Amino acid sequence: MSDTTAHDRLDSLDTPFLAVDLAVMDRNIERLAGRLRGTGVQLRPHAKSHKCVEIAQRQIDSGAIGLTVATIGEAEVFAEAGFTDLFIAYPLWLTPQKAHRLRRVAAGAQLRVAVDSVAGARQLAEHLGNLPITVVVEIDSGHHRTGVDPGEAGAVATAARSAGLNVVGVFTFPGHGYTPGQRAQVAAQESRALDDAADSLRAAGIEPSVRSGGSTPTVDSADNTVLTEVRPGVYPFNDAQQFELDVCTLEDIALSAVTTVVHTRDRTAIVDAGSKILGADRPGWATGFGRLIDDPDARIVALSEHHATIEFPGAAPSPGTRLRIAPNHLCNAVNLVDSLVIDTADGPLHWAVAARGTNT
Amino acid sequence: MSDTTAHDRLDSLDTPFLAVDLAVMDRNIERLAGRLRGTGVQLRPHAKSHKCVEIAQRQIDSGAIGLTVATIGEAEVFAEAGFTDLFIAYPLWLTPQKAHRLRRVAAGAQLRVAVDSVAGARQLAEHLGNLPITVVVEIDSGHHRTGVDPGEAGAVATAARSAGLNVVGVFTFPGHGYTPGQRAQVAAQESRALDDAADSLRAAGIEPSVRSGGSTPTVDSADNTVLTEVRPGVYPFNDAQQFELDVCTLEDIALSAVTTVVHTRDRTAIVDAGSKILGADRPGWATGFGRLIDDPDARIVALSEHHATIEFPGAAPSPGTRLRIAPNHLCNAVNLVDSLVIDTADGPLHWAVAARGTNT
Repeated sequence: MSDTTAHDRLDSLDTPFLAVDLAVMDRNIERLAGRLRGTGVQLRPHAKSHKCVEIAQRQIDSGAIGLTVATIGEAEVFAEAGFTDLFIAYPLWLTPQKAHRLRRVAAGAQLRVAVDSVAGARQLAEHLGNLPITVVVEIDSGHHRTGVDPGEAGAVATAARSAGLNVVGVFTFPGHGYTPGQRAQVAAQESRALDDAADSLRAAGIEPSVRSGGSTPTVDSADNTVLTEVRPGVYPFNDAQQFELDVCTLEDIALSAVTTVVHTRDRTAIVDAGSKILGADRPGWATGFGRLIDDPDARIVALSEHHATIEFPGAAPSPGTRLRIAPNHLCNAVNLVDSLVIDTADGPLHWAVAARGTNT
Repeated sequence: MSDTTAHDRLDSLDTPFLAVDLAVMDRNIERLAGRLRGTGVQLRPHAKSHKCVEIAQRQIDSGAIGLTVATIGEAEVFAEAGFTDLFIAYPLWLTPQKAHRLRRVAAGAQLRVAVDSVAGARQLAEHLGNLPITVVVEIDSGHHRTGVDPGEAGAVATAARSAGLNVVGVFTFPGHGYTPGQRAQVAAQESRALDDAADSLRAAGIEPSVRSGGSTPTVDSADNTVLTEVRPGVYPFNDAQQFELDVCTLEDIALSAVTTVVHTRDRTAIVDAGSKILGADRPGWATGFGRLIDDPDARIVALSEHHATIEFPGAAPSPGTRLRIAPNHLCNAVNLVDSLVIDTADGPLHWAVAARGTNT
């Protein structure tokens, strides 16, 4: 079993640390790329999930057209590393300093940014109107975070165009797909919302050549007659949420916190991985604070900063035993470490989480 | 109002960032130090909360006898910075590498470590038996994480002493005090458990000169006829959890994420601070994912990595408005940034989160 081998290969490293099974990750990257080939839907993976140059490069090598990022800081890291097509999928509120940083990114990369209000469009044009950037309008497809109603997309696009911006389409994040049993329905909502928003742009005389959506839970159900692009982030790794949402199997989870049991009583073990390496995410529907990759029947019932409390169906493993925990939400876990331990057949590599902590 | 002034002073910094109001923090540090003076109870604050050398120094300057840390990595950072009395309040499971690192820490600082099992005591003695370190037995006072039942403390202490370790007492973490309305009752449980464990050591012929407990929610109710030492971590800053547990007022919260509104609709605003700067902690009893320091009636109803969704009782503030959010659990928030912005009357300082990410 590759599990046992991975354990052995990483035995000399002290716990806790985040390990990536390279073979599983490469399989995940290729699987999605393969599914999209020939569908006309382009892949622009979200780099916020891994924040890692080496992984972004593998995504490009498998056919991704560019990267999605969440912050100017992430754009800076990936532009500096040589990535030339970047989309900041966030309705930035610019300051002179942020605008200055964006100019520098745009000097070396094709840059796409988001707007989701008339005021935001005007502010963006004021700061960056003379740059050769493209703009997409964020719409709300049901997640109710940022984004305008699909029917208002044309008005925002018109304001942006009037202010001098080059509007090329619409995008959305169907985050409400992170609910058990809702993936197909949410993907349908997403497609409908993007279609309506595209109509709203056309009615305003603007061609919506970009219709961008997608997230790891919904990407498989995305309607390729509507969407031109998808932006999943988690799919190279997968995590406990994706497993509990039926997006993947435990064998498809490439990233785990390797941890050591420090205390055992009866069916309960306490391990040295806590919220400072797993992150503290726990949606209401989750069965716990992560999942044991090698024991589907165990549950992580409590989490402190350096302790996870794990209940086993039988006797808990003894102190000193190593376990692998898939975090609930790997995007927050990856952001807690300076580097990922990449488990390869030739021994471990250390890949920097180059964009860790780039919140601004 | 100091709030307005703080906003103005930090206006040139792009959001989101973590800011500390130095005057409020110094008042919090001095308040607890003052309460403990003359009670016979010594203060050994937990440095995991701030991970910051400058703040640890202020705690020592106000009378703390040493520091508590959670990991060998934290001990290394604070030993390197010149702190000479360190307690790793965690039942470490040693490897040869971890033992080597502990030896180096012990070469420059007085070191106290934890045991909570006979096997752990033997393993510790095997690795470190010849070092001049002290050992305390961790007991479970009701939080049911690590630690043995108070009545078993003597057996663990005996095993540790037989293995050649210098056992000096007992300690506990009353983490179940993080429940509304339970603080005084949990503090009483803690005192009783420490008293029982001390008796268990005495029955084994070992003098329990250290009886260490305490957490920010319970420290005010700690029984000074039992406890010799307390280890609160959060008290220099406070956070939304402490406010909702009635431990502090909003005016006592020294640390906040300064954030900018990026989207507004009716009574809802979306800001640029999310779980990658606030942390994702949300106990079931919390009213949301943090609290607005300047608006007690607002609620943070949803959190993504770079978005918080805030509902206001009236019209939400416009895009571009800056707000201050107290994280639910600051220990995880501080660990997300490389430095804290210290707001002082003379302008902002940047203090490194020197022990950020030291999980091993």
